[in-house]
Amino acid sequence: MTARTPHVVILGGGFGGIRAARALRTAPVRITLIDRTNHHVFQPLLYQVATAGLAGSDIASPIRWMLRHQRNATVLMSEVSAIDPERRVVALDDALPDLEYDYLIAATGARHSYFGHGEWEAHAPGLKSLEDALAIRRRFLIAFELAEKTDDSEERQALLTFVLVGGGPTGVELAGVMQEIARAMRSDFRRTDTRQTRVILLEGGPRVLPSFPESLSKRAHQDLLDLGVEVRVNALVTRVESEAVWIGDERIATRTVFWAAGNEASRIGQSLGARHDRAGRVEVEPDLSVRGHPEIFVIGDLAIVRQDGKQVPAVAPAAMQMGTAAARNIRHDLRGEPRVSFRYRNKGDLATIGRHKAIADFGKFHVTGRLAWWLWLFVHIMYLVGFRNRLSVLLQWAYAYVTYQRGVRLITQESRLC
Amino acid sequence: MTARTPHVVILGGGFGGIRAARALRTAPVRITLIDRTNHHVFQPLLYQVATAGLAGSDIASPIRWMLRHQRNATVLMSEVSAIDPERRVVALDDALPDLEYDYLIAATGARHSYFGHGEWEAHAPGLKSLEDALAIRRRFLIAFELAEKTDDSEERQALLTFVLVGGGPTGVELAGVMQEIARAMRSDFRRTDTRQTRVILLEGGPRVLPSFPESLSKRAHQDLLDLGVEVRVNALVTRVESEAVWIGDERIATRTVFWAAGNEASRIGQSLGARHDRAGRVEVEPDLSVRGHPEIFVIGDLAIVRQDGKQVPAVAPAAMQMGTAAARNIRHDLRGEPRVSFRYRNKGDLATIGRHKAIADFGKFHVTGRLAWWLWLFVHIMYLVGFRNRLSVLLQWAYAYVTYQRGVRLITQESRLC
Repeated sequence: MTARTPHVVILGGGFGGIRAARALRTAPVRITLIDRTNHHVFQPLLYQVATAGLAGSDIASPIRWMLRHQRNATVLMSEVSAIDPERRVVALDDALPDLEYDYLIAATGARHSYFGHGEWEAHAPGLKSLEDALAIRRRFLIAFELAEKTDDSEERQALLTFVLVGGGPTGVELAGVMQEIARAMRSDFRRTDTRQTRVILLEGGPRVLPSFPESLSKRAHQDLLDLGVEVRVNALVTRVESEAVWIGDERIATRTVFWAAGNEASRIGQSLGARHDRAGRVEVEPDLSVRGHPEIFVIGDLAIVRQDGKQVPAVAPAAMQMGTAAARNIRHDLRGEPRVSFRYRNKGDLATIGRHKAIADFGKFHVTGRLAWWLWLFVHIMYLVGFRNRLSVLLQWAYAYVTYQRGVRLITQESRLC
Repeated sequence: MTARTPHVVILGGGFGGIRAARALRTAPVRITLIDRTNHHVFQPLLYQVATAGLAGSDIASPIRWMLRHQRNATVLMSEVSAIDPERRVVALDDALPDLEYDYLIAATGARHSYFGHGEWEAHAPGLKSLEDALAIRRRFLIAFELAEKTDDSEERQALLTFVLVGGGPTGVELAGVMQEIARAMRSDFRRTDTRQTRVILLEGGPRVLPSFPESLSKRAHQDLLDLGVEVRVNALVTRVESEAVWIGDERIATRTVFWAAGNEASRIGQSLGARHDRAGRVEVEPDLSVRGHPEIFVIGDLAIVRQDGKQVPAVAPAAMQMGTAAARNIRHDLRGEPRVSFRYRNKGDLATIGRHKAIADFGKFHVTGRLAWWLWLFVHIMYLVGFRNRLSVLLQWAYAYVTYQRGVRLITQESRLC
């Protein structure tokens, strides 16, 4: 490969970044993909890791392994410290020399937003990475261990109270599964009646799953109630402490709060000098490039893309389609062809609530209940990366389905040595 | 259950502790099992977790799940802070009231011994817990990531040099697998030739696997050489630093050292006030009780048991047999029958070196090579706890066997939030 080969730098190994790299497989470019972890995570199933249904490795693959046969791609585990759009240079956190690029694809995604209350994060972790999922699992399981050890019934009830902030898909999925697990664990404890577990889902808006049609929201709400979840809409959290959550003057005693409300784009977007919204998401042109910098593409949860008057949702299929589109426009550039505008094709939205409970929105028709749940299962297994993961997940789900048990209920501590 | 029911406190949920609890299933006692983690670990396969062949959950099960149907057993996740053998009381680290016992079974096992150089631990972690295994995995994989990022060839070679201290089963297994993985990863990297990986096994004594007959040691030594491992016997480590290991005046440049030499019993043994050796292991009577305290049993790696002039080895089958024996003597006490002396029945020793390479010692005859390897595989799958784990492990091993790939090559960081 000569020095003249255009260099494409991709920031982020999520759905968008990986898809972009793959779509440039046969293009006359060299690619450097940078991620601060060594693995791609299948984010839609993170809640299963957080609730001990799957092991981390079931839903993650090493990025360099995924791209091992793509000889024009180099993968570096590193963190970006700065981007200079004028000099077309990315600076990295470690000893690596700066990377000059001809094209930059920014796909670094989003973190949770605490709406200006960053101090809440310590009490109410969110769910975006494998580490997040393991931290949530640890907290969830340790609460039961502590409940089993206390003689104070008030403390025990607070330990058995789990509050989920945010009624989007992640909050709903976590709430449903946590209530199910608590019941399934009842024979494991001697002093604690795990059926006294309270799972409280707080949604600031008027209904759960607000991105779905109203009738499906309603169904999901009822499904949650049937599972024993306490659902509170129009419930704006005003304070989060280590032993309580406040909604105005109302105090809910709890030791375990999880955060699934609001996204905040990674800070990379701001260092591009492009226009962005309060959440840090970058406004892009129809071809997904940044205004004034046609060599910079922004994709996935980091980008604001409007279509038919609505924002394209921050979901995996949209990120993947954007990855493909950005790569296509680079290939068009290199062949001297005009760029193509991005257009999101929504193939349907799915959300699961619990065993045999799910909703699916295909625009023209809706599916709910058992059928939607099996559909959800099928789609997620099909999309899971890699043959091995798929089989392993299938096996564990089959086991869980038959036995009502979760296989991965391990509490691991942070290592003393690292 | 009345207050008069004898209370058996078991410290440690390893092979010995779990087996003792199960053997008291039908005895007229109430049992409290205490472990500082929530899970039992199948230690003989920890090296597979450390080398990304298995997920932590494949070789571990929640202790309370294992004992969920045993109604006379309560499991507490806690740490022992003191034992008062005269008052027959165990004090715990947290807010729990002291536990009075009628019988105490101490089965807290061993940690690595750094022979008075505790400061080496930071540079050379050992392999006893799930956390240890994940820490080793992280270090092992990150070394390759760093090698891929450096432009300094000397540094790269140091990063690709892995030193294992201790030529027992753990050291040998780690060495063999690490060399194999390094080769299998060669297409994942663009700048690093993973075939230049050096795995150096240092054994202080005259031969590797010293607990095996000499002819099998020899075979294992040759197997390691065939895999490309550098084996050094009579090599006593005199210093461990962050960038080197010293053997006298010889300096080996390396960034990654793992420790598999020497055991040191947990400190519990010393707080029993019983006779113990330099490594902290407790001398027990033929019935496994402590002299002067027939109500205290010490089992597993924490106990020194001599038989036919030799020490019973610190292996899983011995710990399990001791667990059964201690429980049996408690049952005999309760029925007014005399106690029975413990007798270790060695069913054979196995060690694996790499694909199709293993050794087996059945006393009267030896097995090596491919047959021993399949035997090792069979025995370990059969012993693995729980149906689900067994199937999952089988699947992953089949996958690894066919593809030469490791499925679990994830680097997870310690959580920011816990």
